[in-house]
Amino acid sequence: MNGLARKYEINADMGEGFGRWKMGPDEELMPFIDAANIACGFHAGDPTIMLKTIRLCKQFGVKAGAHPGQQDLFGFGRRKIEVDPKDMYALVLYQVGALKAMLDAESVALSHIKPHGELFFYMQRDETIMRAVLEACAIFRVPVYASQNAQQAAMCEELGIPFQGEVYVDIDYSPDGRLLPVAQSKVATPELCYERALSAAMTDTGKDIDGNEFRFGFDGRPFSICVHSDIPTVLQNVTGARKAVDEANTQRFPQEPGDS
Amino acid sequence: MNGLARKYEINADMGEGFGRWKMGPDEELMPFIDAANIACGFHAGDPTIMLKTIRLCKQFGVKAGAHPGQQDLFGFGRRKIEVDPKDMYALVLYQVGALKAMLDAESVALSHIKPHGELFFYMQRDETIMRAVLEACAIFRVPVYASQNAQQAAMCEELGIPFQGEVYVDIDYSPDGRLLPVAQSKVATPELCYERALSAAMTDTGKDIDGNEFRFGFDGRPFSICVHSDIPTVLQNVTGARKAVDEANTQRFPQEPGDS
Amino acid sequence: MNGLARKYEINADMGEGFGRWKMGPDEELMPFIDAANIACGFHAGDPTIMLKTIRLCKQFGVKAGAHPGQQDLFGFGRRKIEVDPKDMYALVLYQVGALKAMLDAESVALSHIKPHGELFFYMQRDETIMRAVLEACAIFRVPVYASQNAQQAAMCEELGIPFQGEVYVDIDYSPDGRLLPVAQSKVATPELCYERALSAAMTDTGKDIDGNEFRFGFDGRPFSICVHSDIPTVLQNVTGARKAVDEANTQRFPQEPGDS
Amino acid sequence: MNGLARKYEINADMGEGFGRWKMGPDEELMPFIDAANIACGFHAGDPTIMLKTIRLCKQFGVKAGAHPGQQDLFGFGRRKIEVDPKDMYALVLYQVGALKAMLDAESVALSHIKPHGELFFYMQRDETIMRAVLEACAIFRVPVYASQNAQQAAMCEELGIPFQGEVYVDIDYSPDGRLLPVAQSKVATPELCYERALSAAMTDTGKDIDGNEFRFGFDGRPFSICVHSDIPTVLQNVTGARKAVDEANTQRFPQEPGDS
Repeated sequence: MNGLARKYEINADMGEGFGRWKMGPDEELMPFIDAANIACGFHAGDPTIMLKTIRLCKQFGVKAGAHPGQQDLFGFGRRKIEVDPKDMYALVLYQVGALKAMLDAESVALSHIKPHGELFFYMQRDETIMRAVLEACAIFRVPVYASQNAQQAAMCEELGIPFQGEVYVDIDYSPDGRLLPVAQSKVATPELCYERALSAAMTDTGKDIDGNEFRFGFDGRPFSICVHSDIPTVLQNVTGARKAVDEANTQRFPQEPGDS
Repeated sequence: MNGLARKYEINADMGEGFGRWKMGPDEELMPFIDAANIACGFHAGDPTIMLKTIRLCKQFGVKAGAHPGQQDLFGFGRRKIEVDPKDMYALVLYQVGALKAMLDAESVALSHIKPHGELFFYMQRDETIMRAVLEACAIFRVPVYASQNAQQAAMCEELGIPFQGEVYVDIDYSPDGRLLPVAQSKVATPELCYERALSAAMTDTGKDIDGNEFRFGFDGRPFSICVHSDIPTVLQNVTGARKAVDEANTQRFPQEPGDS
Repeated sequence: MNGLARKYEINADMGEGFGRWKMGPDEELMPFIDAANIACGFHAGDPTIMLKTIRLCKQFGVKAGAHPGQQDLFGFGRRKIEVDPKDMYALVLYQVGALKAMLDAESVALSHIKPHGELFFYMQRDETIMRAVLEACAIFRVPVYASQNAQQAAMCEELGIPFQGEVYVDIDYSPDGRLLPVAQSKVATPELCYERALSAAMTDTGKDIDGNEFRFGFDGRPFSICVHSDIPTVLQNVTGARKAVDEANTQRFPQEPGDS
Repeated sequence: MNGLARKYEINADMGEGFGRWKMGPDEELMPFIDAANIACGFHAGDPTIMLKTIRLCKQFGVKAGAHPGQQDLFGFGRRKIEVDPKDMYALVLYQVGALKAMLDAESVALSHIKPHGELFFYMQRDETIMRAVLEACAIFRVPVYASQNAQQAAMCEELGIPFQGEVYVDIDYSPDGRLLPVAQSKVATPELCYERALSAAMTDTGKDIDGNEFRFGFDGRPFSICVHSDIPTVLQNVTGARKAVDEANTQRFPQEPGDS
């Protein structure tokens, strides 16, 4: 097994508090998702929160993945920070390794790696950074999650890492296929999340912010839907996505075991 | 194999710089030691320095261990910081796990764990902290290094962790068997290091700062000598310890392979 | 003018978020208080939040004070950290100075200094730390806020710093006069806060957690009531304290200008 | 008095260690310089080092300036980090204010502000950042140091801040007038530093790395020479610069008091 999703699923960032500070509604969201991207202490998260989040995953039967980020608590990993590719390789090993030891202690498998925020965007802008991050990921032999991206898919293949394509349903896509920030997107509703998720799953199509249809290009492979755990209405939005995912799975992947 | 030393050896803290700042003469010291305690980023070290130090270990055939510490760059891990035992367990997993991933990437085994500075002293003062640290160490199934210590040896045995006893030759022991800080110790010389190391190895005895003899209690088991990489004369001191270790090994453990 | 309160007042900690993370309801609380203790970046707060909080103070006519703390974002300044008194002196100068420059930029006066959490408790436990903190405070020539405390009052007098006594109404006092943590206190209600505040102001008396009456010892001098901005019901509690303060001021300090 | 140099002078970065880690030879360099740029804790320096450096300045009669930087201990303030201009304004106020309080405590005047490393380069690349930094500097009413730069000189004038031009003699200038990093510059010698300093002072000219002469454009105004305290040979280099500065001052500014 290569660790890729065997049917449609939902993932969300988790454990993004720090010390006494909280971010999204982790415990309330857990029942609705399939995979958690656990912050590793650089953009958010601390060792205690990481361990607590792993135990939540265990409790809810949610897959536990690593969510490494830029070293930027102040900017929540969303600011551009210049990193030497050699440093980047070490930064990613460090973060994912730290989480991996906690997963080992809890007898939970590391399911995937999903770079956070600006770390993801940095990879898209700079091929040497993409390579540094993916070479670090390759040590862990688990899928890397990202929006559909031909360059990254190719580099993953070269490095022997499974590439797990993602779809977003609570923010918009620009006409040229990029993801738009929450502030520039239409306000997401559970109904919109349902429609978008179902359309992506059943017809491989989405609509950009101008209303024009585009194809995702999954060719029938199951994708993972990311919901933003830091949007205040995430608990509503996720119900729409969940309903669509469950319906689509019943039709498209009836042989796979049901959701918990 | 349980990972304990099979003959007398020398260990030293390594990779204790941060960013552009340097600490001891790592590269010059490597040829004289058998085991490196690699700082894991909390009291010193950063991911890039950690990886560089692992590669130095590989180059010089030196065993690579983890040197976790209190989260205290400003105080170099030497200040008392109150940590909840649950946080402490997570802090140690985090640090050792981060190093472990880099070792995996370099195909180098994690050889041991040695708590740094105040983390070590905290364990001696507080049994719940000792347990939290050792429970985290137990995940990695490698020996924990520390000065002879009945309580810690017993808890290691309970948790199934090998306990590796240590001897210091460049600082003094107090009459009640505690280690004295560099500033309160006699100035170490290569000759003194040689004599102390040889005495410990051949007769299981040392002299405290008042000149009174005491027994280490190793009962013939090989110990590890720690030299302080941040004493300015470490490169001289280590030659004395090395000479004693090599002589003692020739006599006591002739069946073990020679030093590199 | 020595900067001490001229009538009863209410103070609260403010600006205790960090980056994207929030703590108490700063904006909603501002209309009910007279003085804000602004976190200075070590236990909470960042430069941008500090500046924003100063501007809120300006908008609401609230006095702006410094709220320095231990260097401990992870522990929110509530963990014991050993600090050399010389380091402590520099740490307090650093934090208050940073805030002072922002106040200068906004043409707002620094009204007072109130040490946060464990920094306050450290001062009570260790006289050299108390002296180090107060010597740093003395540079700024503003009142230092603290619970009634003979030793601190005496040292403030020696160093020429005004000492501003405080009363707490949303947590309990132990029989020996110490403040009890929120978790060990009775749940505060607006009515309880009102009664306690009025009793302290009008009769100089409070009741400890066992119900025994004690005297505060203010001898008619106005005190400052601290409400905990991180208790979820703070916006309710503060209304009770505000009502009592306003009533008491009308009776006891009618010559002072009314609240904004 | 506007705080600008009244004769040629030498400045150097100081206090760039952190905790137990050291950077340049601060104490040895002090006798040779006129102005110290003191790191403020963000790229280097900690409160205790800042205070110690201020006391060194006092002891050696050296002017004490602030050396704010990007928040980047790992990268020593030399990496590009995206900062919102509003955050930048607050970051600079914070750092300079922290130093200012310590100077007040030691009754030493803040003499100037010199942005460090990437903070300086960021100002050159981005006008909104330049404005944010200079608006923060304007609060302190002291000169800002920088290489000759028409845009920055104009913005300083607009904001009412004196602009102090600088010359570098231990690194090279590119043909288009930019400063070259140490690694791309010719190795500096005391003789070269002497010649370059004297040429700049007496004839307003320098030579770029290709050997072509250029004019600095000081029009007879005294400039400040910056020597790099982190170049290993700084103690040699500075003697060359010092000799040139003393000779030039004797000829060009004989009315000014002699160097300490």
